[in-house]
Amino acid sequence: MTTQVIVLNGGSSSGKSGIVRCLQAVLPGHWLALGTDTFVDVLPASLQQADGGIEVAADGRVTVGAEFRALEAAWTEGVAAMARAGARVVVDEVFLGGARSQRRWQEALDGLPVLWVGVRCDATVAAGREVARGDRTSGMAASQADLVHQGVTYDLEVDTTHTEAMECARAIAARVSAARAA
Amino acid sequence: MTTQVIVLNGGSSSGKSGIVRCLQAVLPGHWLALGTDTFVDVLPASLQQADGGIEVAADGRVTVGAEFRALEAAWTEGVAAMARAGARVVVDEVFLGGARSQRRWQEALDGLPVLWVGVRCDATVAAGREVARGDRTSGMAASQADLVHQGVTYDLEVDTTHTEAMECARAIAARVSAARAA
Amino acid sequence: MTTQVIVLNGGSSSGKSGIVRCLQAVLPGHWLALGTDTFVDVLPASLQQADGGIEVAADGRVTVGAEFRALEAAWTEGVAAMARAGARVVVDEVFLGGARSQRRWQEALDGLPVLWVGVRCDATVAAGREVARGDRTSGMAASQADLVHQGVTYDLEVDTTHTEAMECARAIAARVSAARAA
Amino acid sequence: MTTQVIVLNGGSSSGKSGIVRCLQAVLPGHWLALGTDTFVDVLPASLQQADGGIEVAADGRVTVGAEFRALEAAWTEGVAAMARAGARVVVDEVFLGGARSQRRWQEALDGLPVLWVGVRCDATVAAGREVARGDRTSGMAASQADLVHQGVTYDLEVDTTHTEAMECARAIAARVSAARAA
Repeated sequence: MTTQVIVLNGGSSSGKSGIVRCLQAVLPGHWLALGTDTFVDVLPASLQQADGGIEVAADGRVTVGAEFRALEAAWTEGVAAMARAGARVVVDEVFLGGARSQRRWQEALDGLPVLWVGVRCDATVAAGREVARGDRTSGMAASQADLVHQGVTYDLEVDTTHTEAMECARAIAARVSAARAA
Repeated sequence: MTTQVIVLNGGSSSGKSGIVRCLQAVLPGHWLALGTDTFVDVLPASLQQADGGIEVAADGRVTVGAEFRALEAAWTEGVAAMARAGARVVVDEVFLGGARSQRRWQEALDGLPVLWVGVRCDATVAAGREVARGDRTSGMAASQADLVHQGVTYDLEVDTTHTEAMECARAIAARVSAARAA
Repeated sequence: MTTQVIVLNGGSSSGKSGIVRCLQAVLPGHWLALGTDTFVDVLPASLQQADGGIEVAADGRVTVGAEFRALEAAWTEGVAAMARAGARVVVDEVFLGGARSQRRWQEALDGLPVLWVGVRCDATVAAGREVARGDRTSGMAASQADLVHQGVTYDLEVDTTHTEAMECARAIAARVSAARAA
Repeated sequence: MTTQVIVLNGGSSSGKSGIVRCLQAVLPGHWLALGTDTFVDVLPASLQQADGGIEVAADGRVTVGAEFRALEAAWTEGVAAMARAGARVVVDEVFLGGARSQRRWQEALDGLPVLWVGVRCDATVAAGREVARGDRTSGMAASQADLVHQGVTYDLEVDTTHTEAMECARAIAARVSAARAA
């Protein structure tokens, strides 16, 4: 069955966005890139801060509130509806709730052919890239590196510690092609 | 019936995004902001240029291809699904096809309580703001100022030529409140 | 004497950057745009926060530390050197120290033909635009609207409350031309 | 003699900006980051395109015109003046003219203690990163990878092909420290 949705899960600064852009370049056809960053961008400014929204502690630990979760559930439904309406979609996500976060997406995407991809990166390397990019609160990379993978199951895992985004994208695309030919 | 979706339509540099951020700040509750700019951002780089995607001519005239239209239809379905799942949504759009573009959204949003808002701006003033913002191809504002309103019907029109974004947002919010009380 | 440097001073969200881009478009010749925003961008991340750098309080009030001031003095010398090396330069500044801030620039630009321009904006209108732009801490516009003009003297003042950036730029450019013909 | 200026030279997408941000984080004291990207940002929009400014061909090859060069010379003088006024500065550059470009900077920085650093990256890897970042014209990375190093001499070279930005920054910082102790 042709893969319709690719879900990438990984911690902050693990290199997901770069892989997504490479996937959009190397996959046959046109894919939408819909991830956590886009969702946060469409939120009202009030929810991009604490009090019901996103709270980034001084040490980089991220927690989100009930109102964030409610809108996120509607967002997830909408992304699934885009795929059901025919769009191929790459979702890049940060499963702060581990297995629970994955279950939420599994339910929303029920019936759609999904490829689940884990994006790993050594915590120390990710922390260095967090400094190099310069637009993230220090500590997010380290605090999420393992947390987001707890209890999550994948069809495929890539590791950006020693592998370029383009090479990871090609490995993922190979699995998408295999799925298409099946 | 409580307004669930607000659709703003206006030409490039007419001031839609500023009104959307003010609406998110002044409306009761939390509203997602989903517009043309977000849609273009999630497209693959190949469709952000000509050949099936967006073509911006040297004079600022914009045309879009069949593959852009196909993904846009799926995007529209997804935005409607977010509203049906409970999210309140502000959509800011550029109806390059005028009445035809509106019909497309009307079909997707069928059954949802929608407030249709026209955002006008004098073409010369919009062209000046296009220079002032510095991130748009020169000529887009002037070529779209009237075009996007042809045959489109609104519940409310605002004009940013002499009215601040915040004041426009308050006028729109007043209509949303009226709808909620009805 | 031909104007070599234009210094715009105004509070946050008073519309300086838009005027600068319009000036670059309408002035004869090519002008560099060097302002506070650029200076802050080139600082290390550590000085973009408190402790010697920039501190933005919860109410939007901005204070800067000694290390910020030391680098700013070197930056100002450098901008003056660019003008002395032949570049025409538009500086857009926020004189948090009022007359004292102006004196600092006057000393650095000593001997160069400078046009001093005040950019005013009604505090309430600027606060609305701060919400509309969505990328500034709430309260900066209101707290700076009058503060930055205290004791500062200008060749020309513009007011963006009811005047477009392009129109302000044309008024400034007219004074530059007059200076060039003198 | 204490290093006052670090000049990094490398092709597009070789990873200079990431190294610069890491340097600002790991070096003792506060360093300004002044590079080609900042210079291009402060240019008028008209020079960010062809006709005297920057021309990026369809294959990513970059050429610049006479008016660009004239303003660049003034910019270079200004950066040198900032260093002479006491600021420590990291310059990240793309020596499109190879040895000629270096000579231009050597003359401007005459008398200042400078550390010259070459930033290498395998052309194929850089081309992949160009896709992953998504904001550069395809082909720039490959066309500049070797070109910018022709005839240029360095105190130190780093290679980002297999080395993280943070590790490169530490190697450079070690040379700065050695210089300071000398």
